[in-house]
Amino acid sequence: MAKLLDGLFVLDFTHALSGPFCTATLADLGCRVIKVEAPGAGDGFRRLGPFVNGSSAYFSGVNRGKESLTVNLKHPDGIRIIEALVRKADVVVENFRPGVMKSFGLAYEHLSSINPGLVYLSISGFGQEGPYSHLGAFDIVVQAMSGIMSVTGVEDGGPTRVGVSVGDLIPALYGVSSILAGLHQKERTGKGCYIDLGMLDCLTAVAENAIARYWATGDVPGPIGNRHPVITPFSTYTASDGYIVIAVGGDAQWRDMCQTVGRPDLAHHPDYETNELRTQNVKQLTALLNEILYEKTVAEWLEALQEAEVPCAKVNTIKDVFDDPHIRHRNMIVGVQHPIMGVQEVPGTPIKARGFDDSITKPSPELGEHTDKLLKEVLALSEEEINRLFVEGVI
Amino acid sequence: MAKLLDGLFVLDFTHALSGPFCTATLADLGCRVIKVEAPGAGDGFRRLGPFVNGSSAYFSGVNRGKESLTVNLKHPDGIRIIEALVRKADVVVENFRPGVMKSFGLAYEHLSSINPGLVYLSISGFGQEGPYSHLGAFDIVVQAMSGIMSVTGVEDGGPTRVGVSVGDLIPALYGVSSILAGLHQKERTGKGCYIDLGMLDCLTAVAENAIARYWATGDVPGPIGNRHPVITPFSTYTASDGYIVIAVGGDAQWRDMCQTVGRPDLAHHPDYETNELRTQNVKQLTALLNEILYEKTVAEWLEALQEAEVPCAKVNTIKDVFDDPHIRHRNMIVGVQHPIMGVQEVPGTPIKARGFDDSITKPSPELGEHTDKLLKEVLALSEEEINRLFVEGVI
Repeated sequence: MAKLLDGLFVLDFTHALSGPFCTATLADLGCRVIKVEAPGAGDGFRRLGPFVNGSSAYFSGVNRGKESLTVNLKHPDGIRIIEALVRKADVVVENFRPGVMKSFGLAYEHLSSINPGLVYLSISGFGQEGPYSHLGAFDIVVQAMSGIMSVTGVEDGGPTRVGVSVGDLIPALYGVSSILAGLHQKERTGKGCYIDLGMLDCLTAVAENAIARYWATGDVPGPIGNRHPVITPFSTYTASDGYIVIAVGGDAQWRDMCQTVGRPDLAHHPDYETNELRTQNVKQLTALLNEILYEKTVAEWLEALQEAEVPCAKVNTIKDVFDDPHIRHRNMIVGVQHPIMGVQEVPGTPIKARGFDDSITKPSPELGEHTDKLLKEVLALSEEEINRLFVEGVI
Repeated sequence: MAKLLDGLFVLDFTHALSGPFCTATLADLGCRVIKVEAPGAGDGFRRLGPFVNGSSAYFSGVNRGKESLTVNLKHPDGIRIIEALVRKADVVVENFRPGVMKSFGLAYEHLSSINPGLVYLSISGFGQEGPYSHLGAFDIVVQAMSGIMSVTGVEDGGPTRVGVSVGDLIPALYGVSSILAGLHQKERTGKGCYIDLGMLDCLTAVAENAIARYWATGDVPGPIGNRHPVITPFSTYTASDGYIVIAVGGDAQWRDMCQTVGRPDLAHHPDYETNELRTQNVKQLTALLNEILYEKTVAEWLEALQEAEVPCAKVNTIKDVFDDPHIRHRNMIVGVQHPIMGVQEVPGTPIKARGFDDSITKPSPELGEHTDKLLKEVLALSEEEINRLFVEGVI
């Protein structure tokens, strides 16, 4: 079965997380992704745990479906190899600090002169220009600078890092959209484009409700625990055997919830009748709901609330995610045969296009695994030429 | 100046957050987005605070750049209006519960028979099929079920909600990519496609490191505070006047950091020499670093660490974000003239394509603001016909 992006050729100069997650998403959608790595070293994430049989499960999870080409970008023959590949590429992605690709001789200006249709995405901490553009960044740096940490965590507690690396992953997803938007305009104009994506920009773009609240009220938002700033009830509550999440989307759902928990009197209570009142009186309401919900187990409440169509959930551990029948049914935890680690279970692709293939079958590549094949098949180099390049430390 | 997606026509049947954020991103990139709303009611987010002069700043932030068309989807004439618009549309986006669009007579099967090139995206809590597909979901429901809350928060503390609605925003970004991938394959085949995006699927897809760790080790990850599970130092630390974030990407950066904080002896200390050792000994190292860093202010450390090219940051509040010269320079907080609220400051678009316009100029629409104009200009209906539709409660 086909994939949505079959036939696209991506040259991938990325390392760590934001760039690799972007190109892994492209690979999941059918792009041929060539990961260009330094001979003998490669992406530093290859050396970051957890390891299975000496191979990094972290690296392989975010580099599945790619091919690895080792090329020394500081050698003129290395640059010639890249230039030859650029002629055949649709997309270049890189996430070095600003200026590094130029120092290799691989700036957009040069590569677009070789291939005017090229869509070239740079991901960096702070973008290619602006006061902070020279600074490096990792996930937590932009989580902190975007204000997102300042609105996450327990009330009156300190700023809290989101436990998955949204500082990289959200830029990665904006990266996928940028590339596809760039390709879309190329279909019209025949010309590619250069996209300058800053990780901090991306995180600022998703700070939505906190930004609206600060702009509207002038109050500086702080962490407020698990509740929603303007929707109530919308939080974790304590059932008799653990946490339960309940999220009430409006007053009709509130009335349904009140019925379900055996307290129809609360539906039109003057303190709780509307979402605005419930949000104003959130402390007393939360205490009351915890008291009510403590009467039964999470499973009992889930059954009753789902029956009443009130959105609710148990708080899953990662083990629960692996064991969840729905997540399995949706192909969202899938096994990929890895040559060293065995069958690795990784997240699937959430982009389910009807009639298209959503499988994830190719593992991450070993360092330089596809160098020979690519040089022969794509660039038609001879065995002797490849040997010479190897001996001279180019590949 | 052009935008990347100029000329695309999007029919938007979404409400609340995941769908509207998806289509706002499309509007930012130049798409013409027609938000279809119920006459007299519209998107429930119009009635969710914070309010300025009675208008919702939350709604307007995530609906900027769209046009509003009020149509009664339960009236046969309303469906005829939609069918006429579908003939001209490139994209349909909806985020009702599965089955609702079909109940209106607007299922993909029908609309694609009218316009075979249509790309039709459905966003729902759990996807269109699978054991949970009938259940409703909001942000916190999928944050909880994906395991993300279970790995966020203070060590040994309870599960913690991410303070921005990533349960909606990450699906929104996958939605943008899905649509553009669908349009890309349409360029090749002439045929559109149907995309079934589940919010829980999207959140599972980004649980990356936690999933790799659980798979590799069998240990169920829990919240570990602000540190990174496999990179150290990578957390918040306490300077004399507040928190500072430091994120060390490898052993060379560790040595630079040790020099900078005046403790070159730590660089090759047997407990701290490699990232693996530092992560093993993270508790004692964090205590030591807090002690060292408490000697100076956040500003002093930032200056010294940035000079040494060690990634670091202060933890910004949302007010700091509004006041940040770099964020302003990057057009990431921009003013949009709103007819009721005045100039609203909203996040800009992080997709900066060189030579293309990144401005955000159009505010969110009032309910039904563009109904007349659209029916006249796009569908060429007469004044009398429009009056009849209004009188009969169709628009």
